[in-house]
Amino acid sequence: MAQADKKSLSYAAAGVDYGPLDAFKRACQLEAQTTRSELAGHGYVEPADVRGESAYLLEGSDHFLAHVEEGLGSKNLIADAMSELLGRSFYRAIGIDTVATIVNDLVTCGAMPISVAMHAGVGASEWFNDLDRASELAKGFAEGCRQANAVWGGGETPTLKGIVNPDAIVLAGSAVGRIFPKSRRITGQLRDGDAIVFLASSGVQTNGLTLCRAVADRVKDGYLAKMSDGRTLGEGLLDPSVIYVKFVEAAQQAGLDLHYVAHVTGHGWRKLMRLAEPFVYEIDVIRKPLPVFEFLGTQIDEREMYATFNMGVGFAAYVTAADADRCVSIAKAAGYDAWIAGRVTRQGGRKAVEIRPLAITFESDTLSLR
Amino acid sequence: MAQADKKSLSYAAAGVDYGPLDAFKRACQLEAQTTRSELAGHGYVEPADVRGESAYLLEGSDHFLAHVEEGLGSKNLIADAMSELLGRSFYRAIGIDTVATIVNDLVTCGAMPISVAMHAGVGASEWFNDLDRASELAKGFAEGCRQANAVWGGGETPTLKGIVNPDAIVLAGSAVGRIFPKSRRITGQLRDGDAIVFLASSGVQTNGLTLCRAVADRVKDGYLAKMSDGRTLGEGLLDPSVIYVKFVEAAQQAGLDLHYVAHVTGHGWRKLMRLAEPFVYEIDVIRKPLPVFEFLGTQIDEREMYATFNMGVGFAAYVTAADADRCVSIAKAAGYDAWIAGRVTRQGGRKAVEIRPLAITFESDTLSLR
Repeated sequence: MAQADKKSLSYAAAGVDYGPLDAFKRACQLEAQTTRSELAGHGYVEPADVRGESAYLLEGSDHFLAHVEEGLGSKNLIADAMSELLGRSFYRAIGIDTVATIVNDLVTCGAMPISVAMHAGVGASEWFNDLDRASELAKGFAEGCRQANAVWGGGETPTLKGIVNPDAIVLAGSAVGRIFPKSRRITGQLRDGDAIVFLASSGVQTNGLTLCRAVADRVKDGYLAKMSDGRTLGEGLLDPSVIYVKFVEAAQQAGLDLHYVAHVTGHGWRKLMRLAEPFVYEIDVIRKPLPVFEFLGTQIDEREMYATFNMGVGFAAYVTAADADRCVSIAKAAGYDAWIAGRVTRQGGRKAVEIRPLAITFESDTLSLR
Repeated sequence: MAQADKKSLSYAAAGVDYGPLDAFKRACQLEAQTTRSELAGHGYVEPADVRGESAYLLEGSDHFLAHVEEGLGSKNLIADAMSELLGRSFYRAIGIDTVATIVNDLVTCGAMPISVAMHAGVGASEWFNDLDRASELAKGFAEGCRQANAVWGGGETPTLKGIVNPDAIVLAGSAVGRIFPKSRRITGQLRDGDAIVFLASSGVQTNGLTLCRAVADRVKDGYLAKMSDGRTLGEGLLDPSVIYVKFVEAAQQAGLDLHYVAHVTGHGWRKLMRLAEPFVYEIDVIRKPLPVFEFLGTQIDEREMYATFNMGVGFAAYVTAADADRCVSIAKAAGYDAWIAGRVTRQGGRKAVEIRPLAITFESDTLSLR
């Protein structure tokens, strides 16, 4: 276990400050809205309130088209560091993660991904000279597509000298999906008293990795430090993400009414209050942290952990209280670990996430996404 | 005008070697094909021979869906250099270019882009602190979408510390499009004697920019060197790309049978022989180079120029000889500069591009894309 000094790490101190980035996102959304009229000639309209959601939607006569562009982030830097230490490739997991980050956003609106494309931008074409790594990346991406019931529909592999570091790769991509019939759309119709069902993650998945790298930099043995389960920190960080497509598919096929779902990514559990409408999300059931979070928790204070990481929860579903047990059963039957974690309440205009067993509360001013 | 030394620059010497990159692309295509069976549950099938084309297609009952992921490349480094020299932003052009590179690939199959998403990955979130630059980028991207008759459907703006250089941005994105009715698909049915119609580019557009940067590095005055039209090299390089969507749309609406079209990008005029089937592309009409190509030609030999740059030709359309004049008229009416440049001939199994006025020939072994 790491020998921690007491100064706790934070995400902003690790080099990620969402302030100017969020401002640019909002500027883009305003500009993007001016292009909405272009849809007229295509037989689609833009649904109200779709801007700022995890997936962009187009409403056709009998279906919705869904479009997502997403990026892996910096997780592959950890794969590179571990490769250097252990002499084997971790890019199969990285390929799965890249697909996961794209399709887990797409399914939040109820769309099933059909086609996923890869963007792999390198600083030097020599990146591909490591044939094992390149091959693992391709195999992992295909495996992710299979887990998402989607076809791998092409991609782009630019060489970006002077933009990307010579030994690095930018992994991202996009997905096209469809909601059919239209009634399967998940619109964000929460009601006072709704149950919150959590689906387990495999670990950090694809968020907070910059902070994880900062932790590895300052603990004894770095990525080779041992976690409580005997595995190394690096291995724990590189567990491939869970892909939640088959949960949403199973819920739809069972006719379960998903009032809303959230992909728990950047901003950690603050993401649970992503919906614009104000609700309070009361979490009563907290599980023992996975070994990787236990380890990270020696260096980062608990509030920052929940504000940044998924903390073992990769996906949240909000259903009417009477459907809560059934939602858990459907998730389990589809191969996911799931449990009832709390409930949604209406408290006037208040919007917050209350993690009651830990006495941690995030008010809405801690999350600015739109 | 630049004082050239006689040693000519080449693309490989400038740091872009397509060898290992093309090998990875082929590996991805093989892996991707194993995911094809995932389409069964979605009501789509993969058309034969779609792998390796500029856009990925899915065949539905009465339409095709099209999906493209593309990247800008390194053109924005030139915008950054010019900003430093002249104190103003060139990112409106860069925004248009980013959309152009995506949608110009997508239309090659006859699909009209519906939604375009932006991927903007920075090395440090401070990139967005330059509000003028960030705002121009957003405005340019919206303008590109309007020129493509498409809506701007979201995007992603990751901070990729340790992957992307702190002062740089990776610009890319994706588009979803549709071919409806299905008969509008451009399948690549070339015939002996077909005419080749060229549509003008604005300049280098988005390809060969790494080589352009190498040229600027070695000429007197760099990006501020004067071209023959009195403008600077930097301005010439940053002319925003032409978006060819409205040409394809106009051709479709006029009922013109486009046998094949090519977006002339990486690999320059070698891209004219992108189709797998062997034909010889005989070019008889060469225009006087644009000032920017004239300037670059002082540092790069002519064959390398045509193997790398679009040389004033951003898009090529192949039509039956009897349709050639009409194709040009349709392009002109839609606002494009276009001309009949040559013809396609069948010469057994030979595949080549012959630029006859210059006595330059590219045989098929100079292009390996699939």
